[in-house]
Amino acid sequence: MHAIDLNSDAAESFGSWTMGDDAGILDSITSINIACGFHGGDARTMRRTVALAAAKGVTVGAHVGYRDLAGFGRRFIAYDYEDLASETLYQLGALAGIARAEGTEVRYVKPHGALAHAIQHDETQARAVVDAAARFDPRLTLLLLPGSRAAELAREAGLTVVLEAFADRGYRADGTLVPRTEPGAVLHDEAQIVEAMLRFVREGTVTAVDGTVVPLEAASICVHSDTPGSVAMAAAIRRALEDAGVQLRGFARGEG
Amino acid sequence: MHAIDLNSDAAESFGSWTMGDDAGILDSITSINIACGFHGGDARTMRRTVALAAAKGVTVGAHVGYRDLAGFGRRFIAYDYEDLASETLYQLGALAGIARAEGTEVRYVKPHGALAHAIQHDETQARAVVDAAARFDPRLTLLLLPGSRAAELAREAGLTVVLEAFADRGYRADGTLVPRTEPGAVLHDEAQIVEAMLRFVREGTVTAVDGTVVPLEAASICVHSDTPGSVAMAAAIRRALEDAGVQLRGFARGEG
Amino acid sequence: MHAIDLNSDAAESFGSWTMGDDAGILDSITSINIACGFHGGDARTMRRTVALAAAKGVTVGAHVGYRDLAGFGRRFIAYDYEDLASETLYQLGALAGIARAEGTEVRYVKPHGALAHAIQHDETQARAVVDAAARFDPRLTLLLLPGSRAAELAREAGLTVVLEAFADRGYRADGTLVPRTEPGAVLHDEAQIVEAMLRFVREGTVTAVDGTVVPLEAASICVHSDTPGSVAMAAAIRRALEDAGVQLRGFARGEG
Amino acid sequence: MHAIDLNSDAAESFGSWTMGDDAGILDSITSINIACGFHGGDARTMRRTVALAAAKGVTVGAHVGYRDLAGFGRRFIAYDYEDLASETLYQLGALAGIARAEGTEVRYVKPHGALAHAIQHDETQARAVVDAAARFDPRLTLLLLPGSRAAELAREAGLTVVLEAFADRGYRADGTLVPRTEPGAVLHDEAQIVEAMLRFVREGTVTAVDGTVVPLEAASICVHSDTPGSVAMAAAIRRALEDAGVQLRGFARGEG
Repeated sequence: MHAIDLNSDAAESFGSWTMGDDAGILDSITSINIACGFHGGDARTMRRTVALAAAKGVTVGAHVGYRDLAGFGRRFIAYDYEDLASETLYQLGALAGIARAEGTEVRYVKPHGALAHAIQHDETQARAVVDAAARFDPRLTLLLLPGSRAAELAREAGLTVVLEAFADRGYRADGTLVPRTEPGAVLHDEAQIVEAMLRFVREGTVTAVDGTVVPLEAASICVHSDTPGSVAMAAAIRRALEDAGVQLRGFARGEG
Repeated sequence: MHAIDLNSDAAESFGSWTMGDDAGILDSITSINIACGFHGGDARTMRRTVALAAAKGVTVGAHVGYRDLAGFGRRFIAYDYEDLASETLYQLGALAGIARAEGTEVRYVKPHGALAHAIQHDETQARAVVDAAARFDPRLTLLLLPGSRAAELAREAGLTVVLEAFADRGYRADGTLVPRTEPGAVLHDEAQIVEAMLRFVREGTVTAVDGTVVPLEAASICVHSDTPGSVAMAAAIRRALEDAGVQLRGFARGEG
Repeated sequence: MHAIDLNSDAAESFGSWTMGDDAGILDSITSINIACGFHGGDARTMRRTVALAAAKGVTVGAHVGYRDLAGFGRRFIAYDYEDLASETLYQLGALAGIARAEGTEVRYVKPHGALAHAIQHDETQARAVVDAAARFDPRLTLLLLPGSRAAELAREAGLTVVLEAFADRGYRADGTLVPRTEPGAVLHDEAQIVEAMLRFVREGTVTAVDGTVVPLEAASICVHSDTPGSVAMAAAIRRALEDAGVQLRGFARGEG
Repeated sequence: MHAIDLNSDAAESFGSWTMGDDAGILDSITSINIACGFHGGDARTMRRTVALAAAKGVTVGAHVGYRDLAGFGRRFIAYDYEDLASETLYQLGALAGIARAEGTEVRYVKPHGALAHAIQHDETQARAVVDAAARFDPRLTLLLLPGSRAAELAREAGLTVVLEAFADRGYRADGTLVPRTEPGAVLHDEAQIVEAMLRFVREGTVTAVDGTVVPLEAASICVHSDTPGSVAMAAAIRRALEDAGVQLRGFARGEG
């Protein structure tokens, strides 16, 4: 690969509660996943983060999630089609309204948390998210986990699909993430992470926890902004990629 | 007047709780104020009601309100500027996203409940709503109570302002509404209401509770949909106006 | 059986949205399941309904549910143990505080909606509800669906378990309810329902949709209050039972 | 004074959002104000913090607030009597349920944020809080700001009232707090704060921003736990008081 995207979750604060360093992470990434108020992200935080992203030329995406502030969207909820499609539209629109006021627009959709996992296999929920995105704007890109039923449906619906790799997560030999309940799920060593991402960009592979070299198809790398040190980690990854001659570039339409 | 608009609040159900007869009221009105999820209106209800409105050619407006489901937006909340402006944008966008998916768009904004009352005099909140509307779309019309500070600010900001009369509310000699805590606040007699609205449209006046004839400037009449008999009342008003040769016509841009 | 309990869900209104006829149903039942604010039931409604129940000598139970106003607690949510146990305690306590102020107390717990279904088989959620109830008050009765894992755990924990039958629901040959998505799930014919309940009380059986006579163990009959005609239905069931010499009597401790 | 209470707000986290260092502050204080879920404080956090308080012998109070997670209870809301009284009962009960499960109980009530300010002068809201507390448990203490209408009503209702001083807030010559919008509202210098609190305990006075020495009646000092350094500050105040021979002791009934 000669070019790659770096994305990160942001606008996850809510009212008096803060989460992540939105301003800090924006210096390193090319695409920003904005929480849309359902799992996190009050309107004021969304607006401030979108304004910062617009100022720095970072592409804005909608991080749509379940209506579950208490669970931060990380618990599966058995939504039916109509509710999920309507709430996805609602969240897309809400962010688009804020983006319009700040002189930018929503270019992609990344499902959040338990919703992202559900639409890998739940036909009803996958279809609801894809249909809502396609109805809202057929030029939207969907940023998804590999191996997702939603990816198939999105391509059928004519939407662009981009897959992502995770900088600080361990992989299993089948290319899926090590679950958070198992050892090796989250990586902390900066040098190791940077090395792995360089290899991924150069060779299209990651090394699984059991040592297997696994091919990984992804046009974006997700870095985190919600832990101490995550802003520094993102900066280190970006620097290493740039030093290696890799261009950092948003994946969605409209990017220069 | 040769033409007038009839507006009504709708999409005020939430989840398993229903309020109003959205399908019924749509046969009589020309503009529909869609709740945007903060005081009422889940996304599915919003979408269904917008789809019905689009099918019947009724103009869609955003009924923006305080974030207060438990109080249905009827309690004053001491919002600051940034929160209220951002949440207004959020609600406008959310409805616009749904409207886009249903082939229509948001053409006006009507503040709801306690917010509508607050912006008659609260400079900060009035400015927040007006600024948000202007940033979202400078072609929006604001549908407001007469005598509102928000109306002044909206005109300064270049937005169109339309004032509304209330079919089933009593007026005082100064042209303001009889407060709900006083006798004569709400009218119930169909013949009396229809007669009053005909007179208002012909002569531009209403008769206050003390008998005073009061001039009233308004280009839209608000009818209710949330009580038994309100759909029949709206139909009676429409019929009487049409029989008197008054054209029923939405007030916002884009109406045919 | 010489005695049976009639229970009904109540206090399911929320703010400006009403559901059910709490005052009406209280004339026919002996136990009332009070929504505790998470799937429905604002504090004012809870208090008013508890006060009415206390005045009429109807036993108060906590209808605990998922935190999901938008879904009315009818969607499965993948709660973990700690969150569900803590939220169950919170709801039990909230209702107990209101009951104390109105001169009564909480004598039983009935899980609501999707939670009631989940704890039939989900070990973690069943344990969370049972542990919370036992920690709150070991004298509490749990009112449960037959065949529930929660019932086993509750008995192990030393809690009393009471099972319920549903007056207006169809049964399958295995004694489970006909799912709402299938024909025969909900019964509407008053004579048929009254006849079935008389037979159930006399013989301990119900007739399944396929004609099979099924034994059913239950010490309480659930009647509904949220549809037109449900108050009349409850009254008819009560009258028929009384005419047949069956005593109507609450199941929980402390009843006279 | 030979004895004083130190109180602090806690359990203000919500779901994935953390606020304050509940475990840290518990080492220095004698009374803990537990958020009850309306302005902050999910049930799991409430339970964990109450369990820690019980283990350390710190008195548990209910920090009741407006239903306003997005505004953290810091915005005035125009509640009516019934809603506020019912929601106060609900919150008191919810915390009491959790406290019971953890082997302790609720001994006092401290209104939070905008509610605390409102009940200094708003007769309806003051009466709602006082009536709810008295109905819930007439042995409850109310922890209030000086000069409060609620204090008068509480004493009339037979409740014990305790007033509090604020360690890190500036005072005006009339004994009220410097508003947060003015200079000198919040103090940061540890030595200065410790010195002022020693003087307050010895002489019953504080020095206002204009140099006036102001008498201050208070049996509890509020320290904060939600900023970096606040745990160390609380520890420093406690140490200085103990070194000066002042006994640290909870104010509410049941304390040893």
